[in-house]
Amino acid sequence: MADDIVLYTFWRSSCAHRVRLALAHKKLNYTSVFINLIKGEQLDSRYRQKNPSGYVPAIEIDGHLLTESVAILEYLEETHPQFPLLPKSPYERALVRAAVQMIACGIQPLQNLNVLTKISEDPSAPLAPGTLYNERGKAFARHFNERGLSAFEDNLAAFEKQGVRGPFCFGEQFTMADVLLIPQLAGARRFGVDLTPFKRILRVEQASASLECVIAAAPENQPDFTG
Amino acid sequence: MADDIVLYTFWRSSCAHRVRLALAHKKLNYTSVFINLIKGEQLDSRYRQKNPSGYVPAIEIDGHLLTESVAILEYLEETHPQFPLLPKSPYERALVRAAVQMIACGIQPLQNLNVLTKISEDPSAPLAPGTLYNERGKAFARHFNERGLSAFEDNLAAFEKQGVRGPFCFGEQFTMADVLLIPQLAGARRFGVDLTPFKRILRVEQASASLECVIAAAPENQPDFTG
Repeated sequence: MADDIVLYTFWRSSCAHRVRLALAHKKLNYTSVFINLIKGEQLDSRYRQKNPSGYVPAIEIDGHLLTESVAILEYLEETHPQFPLLPKSPYERALVRAAVQMIACGIQPLQNLNVLTKISEDPSAPLAPGTLYNERGKAFARHFNERGLSAFEDNLAAFEKQGVRGPFCFGEQFTMADVLLIPQLAGARRFGVDLTPFKRILRVEQASASLECVIAAAPENQPDFTG
Repeated sequence: MADDIVLYTFWRSSCAHRVRLALAHKKLNYTSVFINLIKGEQLDSRYRQKNPSGYVPAIEIDGHLLTESVAILEYLEETHPQFPLLPKSPYERALVRAAVQMIACGIQPLQNLNVLTKISEDPSAPLAPGTLYNERGKAFARHFNERGLSAFEDNLAAFEKQGVRGPFCFGEQFTMADVLLIPQLAGARRFGVDLTPFKRILRVEQASASLECVIAAAPENQPDFTG
């Protein structure tokens, strides 16, 4: 069954990166189909037959086609519970899921390519051919990465006050909070965010760097990487 | 226990509206504490002691303080399973959660007050005192409501092809997908979105309108309503 998993992915998509991390953490093998977002392949009719929304990731698993990265993570957790990505108690699960939403709703949507393109619309200064957003778009993405990661850092400090110790966001267990955080940091750096004030976040990143799943899922280790 | 629930809410917040809907659907009594976002009360130190992120909603429940509306919905579902808001099978749960994320990540963050204020920054045309965003901000919110609701409508059409019939988003069961959709429509109308092309969405709204939980949670029926 696990061999039949097909992931529609792009090396730079942070949402695809989340799913790559979860699959690798749960030791689920999968085949990649690469959808080049920079070339606009997500809008090709062949892909939209799979995923009409035109976003990556999408996944074929257990005979189903699923979309939306956080919904996919929850599905993997329910159907492939080995190497769990959520704690056991409902309260702790709520804390981890809140951290997930801080990134999934509070940061990533505000640096999405189509959002930055919209922000960059300026009749008096059209974008150069091949350019997807301008300085205004980049500054917008940087602002909301800084704001959101600052809130995430405060949240890690609040976890500490409750007795949570590292190395990961929620203690010794690698959870969905880490699965969301690690891909977001690549985005933050791309937009020029200075991460040095976020000491707890950087500590989590460092602790995660040597994990097999983190290495396997990293953008630069994907066959379609062109960065 | 249920009598001890305290919800920090504001009538116009679509994220607070989601939690009001879920609590009412599950017939959980709660006390409201009103946080006036227009007056900036979410940034007062008294509230930030409760929720450092300065967002509503927050909830005190079962001796815990929880934030982030979707994480709260999942917690309610796990700990108060009566009148469930998710289907039973993992595949169907994934479809409902994908619909949730389409709104929670794909629409709502792009009309959040602090995002529209940022979009409205223009050194050559400062905002009038008391104004929170300008026409550019409103047009941005309208654009992403239209885009996101159009994808949501397509998703309802895809559900139909799989045999899902109304009256609600995912058939006869009122689910988290409805809990996210109904509050979003108030936002869409506020930004001037013409909803008439979204026939399936309007059908869901009409079918839901007479439900006790929908009436109880509606913005205009909250004690702090000033619209």
